[in-house]
Amino acid sequence: MKRIAVFTSGGDSPGMNACIRAVVRTAVYHGVEVYGVLRGYSGLINGELLRMDSMSVSNIIQKGGTILKSARSQAFMTREGRERAYNNLLNYHIDGLIAIGGNGTFTGAMTFFEEFGIPTVGAPGTIDNDLFGTDFTIGYDTAVNTALEAIDKIRDTADSHERVFFIEVMGRDSGYIAIPCAIGGGAELVLVPEQKVTPEDVIETLKAGFSRSKTSFIVVVAEGETAGTAVAEIAARAKEAIPQMDARVSIIGHIQRGGSPTAADRLLASQMGIAAVEALLAGHKNEMVGVVNRQVCLTPFQQTIFRKKRINENFMKMVEILSV
Amino acid sequence: MKRIAVFTSGGDSPGMNACIRAVVRTAVYHGVEVYGVLRGYSGLINGELLRMDSMSVSNIIQKGGTILKSARSQAFMTREGRERAYNNLLNYHIDGLIAIGGNGTFTGAMTFFEEFGIPTVGAPGTIDNDLFGTDFTIGYDTAVNTALEAIDKIRDTADSHERVFFIEVMGRDSGYIAIPCAIGGGAELVLVPEQKVTPEDVIETLKAGFSRSKTSFIVVVAEGETAGTAVAEIAARAKEAIPQMDARVSIIGHIQRGGSPTAADRLLASQMGIAAVEALLAGHKNEMVGVVNRQVCLTPFQQTIFRKKRINENFMKMVEILSV
Amino acid sequence: MKRIAVFTSGGDSPGMNACIRAVVRTAVYHGVEVYGVLRGYSGLINGELLRMDSMSVSNIIQKGGTILKSARSQAFMTREGRERAYNNLLNYHIDGLIAIGGNGTFTGAMTFFEEFGIPTVGAPGTIDNDLFGTDFTIGYDTAVNTALEAIDKIRDTADSHERVFFIEVMGRDSGYIAIPCAIGGGAELVLVPEQKVTPEDVIETLKAGFSRSKTSFIVVVAEGETAGTAVAEIAARAKEAIPQMDARVSIIGHIQRGGSPTAADRLLASQMGIAAVEALLAGHKNEMVGVVNRQVCLTPFQQTIFRKKRINENFMKMVEILSV
Amino acid sequence: MKRIAVFTSGGDSPGMNACIRAVVRTAVYHGVEVYGVLRGYSGLINGELLRMDSMSVSNIIQKGGTILKSARSQAFMTREGRERAYNNLLNYHIDGLIAIGGNGTFTGAMTFFEEFGIPTVGAPGTIDNDLFGTDFTIGYDTAVNTALEAIDKIRDTADSHERVFFIEVMGRDSGYIAIPCAIGGGAELVLVPEQKVTPEDVIETLKAGFSRSKTSFIVVVAEGETAGTAVAEIAARAKEAIPQMDARVSIIGHIQRGGSPTAADRLLASQMGIAAVEALLAGHKNEMVGVVNRQVCLTPFQQTIFRKKRINENFMKMVEILSV
Repeated sequence: MKRIAVFTSGGDSPGMNACIRAVVRTAVYHGVEVYGVLRGYSGLINGELLRMDSMSVSNIIQKGGTILKSARSQAFMTREGRERAYNNLLNYHIDGLIAIGGNGTFTGAMTFFEEFGIPTVGAPGTIDNDLFGTDFTIGYDTAVNTALEAIDKIRDTADSHERVFFIEVMGRDSGYIAIPCAIGGGAELVLVPEQKVTPEDVIETLKAGFSRSKTSFIVVVAEGETAGTAVAEIAARAKEAIPQMDARVSIIGHIQRGGSPTAADRLLASQMGIAAVEALLAGHKNEMVGVVNRQVCLTPFQQTIFRKKRINENFMKMVEILSV
Repeated sequence: MKRIAVFTSGGDSPGMNACIRAVVRTAVYHGVEVYGVLRGYSGLINGELLRMDSMSVSNIIQKGGTILKSARSQAFMTREGRERAYNNLLNYHIDGLIAIGGNGTFTGAMTFFEEFGIPTVGAPGTIDNDLFGTDFTIGYDTAVNTALEAIDKIRDTADSHERVFFIEVMGRDSGYIAIPCAIGGGAELVLVPEQKVTPEDVIETLKAGFSRSKTSFIVVVAEGETAGTAVAEIAARAKEAIPQMDARVSIIGHIQRGGSPTAADRLLASQMGIAAVEALLAGHKNEMVGVVNRQVCLTPFQQTIFRKKRINENFMKMVEILSV
Repeated sequence: MKRIAVFTSGGDSPGMNACIRAVVRTAVYHGVEVYGVLRGYSGLINGELLRMDSMSVSNIIQKGGTILKSARSQAFMTREGRERAYNNLLNYHIDGLIAIGGNGTFTGAMTFFEEFGIPTVGAPGTIDNDLFGTDFTIGYDTAVNTALEAIDKIRDTADSHERVFFIEVMGRDSGYIAIPCAIGGGAELVLVPEQKVTPEDVIETLKAGFSRSKTSFIVVVAEGETAGTAVAEIAARAKEAIPQMDARVSIIGHIQRGGSPTAADRLLASQMGIAAVEALLAGHKNEMVGVVNRQVCLTPFQQTIFRKKRINENFMKMVEILSV
Repeated sequence: MKRIAVFTSGGDSPGMNACIRAVVRTAVYHGVEVYGVLRGYSGLINGELLRMDSMSVSNIIQKGGTILKSARSQAFMTREGRERAYNNLLNYHIDGLIAIGGNGTFTGAMTFFEEFGIPTVGAPGTIDNDLFGTDFTIGYDTAVNTALEAIDKIRDTADSHERVFFIEVMGRDSGYIAIPCAIGGGAELVLVPEQKVTPEDVIETLKAGFSRSKTSFIVVVAEGETAGTAVAEIAARAKEAIPQMDARVSIIGHIQRGGSPTAADRLLASQMGIAAVEALLAGHKNEMVGVVNRQVCLTPFQQTIFRKKRINENFMKMVEILSV
């Protein structure tokens, strides 16, 4: 393998730049040429490739977002689009790809390989931490810390005004972000997609708290499929049942995707970038690098896409114990 | 004056604790006894007063919120409620009050003085910075920095995905928060209550930017009277006019009220706390302490309540120049 | 077991409060009475115990330091001191102890148990992460992030002035803090006690970098046994060998022990607090709770004290690859 | 004036990039061509100029350091060096200069103008805030907040271990940084160059505090002319006099120069950049822009260099009152 290309795809996450940097420098270290593709699959199709060297990734390890930009590409869903992408890679003599992203990204890479045989190794770049094959994804630790800092600030007001705050954090299909935010934020309750909690349960918990003379509450809600809706509905129901309660809704929102990556995310992103290049050079393809029990490992895209990573159920119990 | 009491009222703001600390220690310094009233006017009515000394305010200067809690009181709007408050103050032999809050707080204090003759000096505690009689209010600098940090994070995503973000910051009647956020956040446009900007103006600015090959934009919107509504409407209108644009709305929300106060807010809060006590001891009443041109000064409540502080119009021009 | 006590000992670390909170609330949850001991072993000797309940630990999860204070105790090194401690525990009817601290703390507990039979379970509270029996200690993640933020700031100056910075981070016997700081901080070199690097190696690396037209460098140095000395010496030697180099020394210092704990530290501290109480109630003693491969586990004090946790040597290689 | 150049010189400060951005965009806005000079006077001499446009300064407003780099230049102290600089400016047809820096920078500009007649307008870029002609310098607010955050972290340890910390902050000739750090950090004492405090005074204050049963202290020390020395000496003297005291020294150091600028610094830097260009275009020279009482104004270099800005003595009194 003489020349590889790297791109970021799907929602951006803090640490993507650290991962790009590691990919580029590992390629340089091993004497392999490296190109960056702008805007993910869209840039592959439009031929937006640029030669990168060690200097191209100077001073980006601490930056949020992705210098290679990201975009969703309808065109790559079509055979025609993928063919154009392939031709561009041929023109540039690219032998292998590193894809930094999540499930959608890897699904595209798998199809592309079946049709055109360009090997791809993936690195897990998403704040959601919902990828099978790695204990942590790049950006997850940062997103949790960002949400938690927001919750700390909101608690100042919750305490001062003796209010109940229903706080929505990101997490479409899972409570991976919500749970550490609830534990770390000292929340009384956490609502996650993995566990059905009815509005009645919420109301009961609040009432029990008031009767123990708690005066302020934090309820952390994972956004679920309909961001902003679930949290508003729960809050409205609770307010109806406990009218004297002073309740507010806060949606942490997009800030969770940005910001300078934490130490853990920079380290993970660096490990993943190195491992991805070395795996590609060693002949791997259609696999995602990950970290399981602090060991770097590889998982077939097939599994990362179709298998579900389970949440630690002890964590849910912890919220209950700690808000006694 | 032998014994005074201090309370916080209205929306909490970072630096209120630093101000309480300064009030208490200045009282101690001058040999005056000092009580803290819990929950603002509500605590005055319910007799929630506690003796404070130097130790009571140890290690709170850096804390958001208010250790004295805050609440809105319907009862203080009634003559009966105020009478109960007065009787409590009599019982506790309180000769003067320090009220940390905003216009609503000072209005209550003024009425109370007219009826019962208890002198009150106010300190400007609100993130909104909309009080006449002071260049800056306690909490304003922190709120602006909190909002700005959020905007910095959002810009990572805006850049990476080449998106337009419409970001709502606090500010019901004024653009005091929105304007430094727009300038400091490198926004292309700022919408504030003080200046009418039509959706057509916004659309035009965006189109002009796209034609100069800008690919991401930040539009900062002051919440105005109907939080969440204005920003959503503007975004929808713009999206309709420029359908290819990838636009999102983000509402910074309650985090702006919390968090550890900045250096400037701790300094201001400390100055105001000292000045308020010294003014009260010197016989002032019905006045708010403030800082104008870096000099501590006093302004009658009458003026802080009814006069409007004007925004520096040069700042609006700056946004235009800097996004060229 | 009806009544237990908890204390913090040794150097304070961020997350100790979160751990105290978890200990107290888990005790309450299981219907066990709980006391807090002030100032570690010193407070045991002097009988500084206070009854704690759920409210005693409200709103402390996010706070650095330890509300129970910490101190080193010469007296506890003596049989007489320990006897006084034992008598106090008898008086208070304390059946078991939770000790939050490091090796020194656990050594004391072990001796105390041998002499007086009071069972103790330990929780790993130290920023150094050098305890065998847990992948991470409480405070480590925060300390690393604090040091890294400092390095990020220093790099602004390093870049702007094209300087070489020799930065000392904490870590007396190990490079646990230095290594992620070096990787995350984009350092060119890391010096840790586990690996001998001579001044000549440092000079060679710097020269090689200059010859590749690097203009600024970060060298991260673990403090080692003689804080401040090693880093100054290395810097002086390098400066001598490369006189045209503009080099500075920066010692991150005590800020690494303080600050609000990260999400990971709050989660870990909460897990450890719960696990410690439940282990004590289940009859464990002379053991430390820890997390290995994300599973809570117990390790005899004997092992945590005498066995050495090894550093991942791949990390050292990463610094080399990533600064290519 | 058709073409101007901008450079940064002296110690870097947060907000310099925001100022460069404002200079460039204001030039573009007024139809004037603009060049950036690398490495201050050194780059003028070596002809390191590059054409800048609106895009060159995208996404830098939030960055610490200076993208134009900074350096001290011995060569510019010589007539020959300045002549080379002049010839470069002639070659590039540069009509005017914007210098962002401090007193040393402006002294150079003044000499250069006298000899070669190239008009320069200065913008106050230094963390020290010691420039006559402006209430605040670019970077000062950020430096104070950075130091204060460090002090907050150190206080966690000071409290937990009941220690005395002697903390050195920057400030060679003035207490501008030390004073708000002391007030905002809740320090018991502040030592600044403007006011002689003997070691005996320090010892007396500490003793008085101990006798009021204070158990931890923060003493903030401005570095003065001999960084690191004064603070160590004071600490040693105090330790000698009060041997039972557990005292530590912490030097905040270089982190104070870096980091993302605060809202106030971004606003000030943007104002200064705009004002500097507009002043230059309006025919000003040998003057520094500044902000006095929130109004933009101009002050001759002669005065900024030779007149001394006085510190507000009330602030010193505040430290005393607030640590009662």
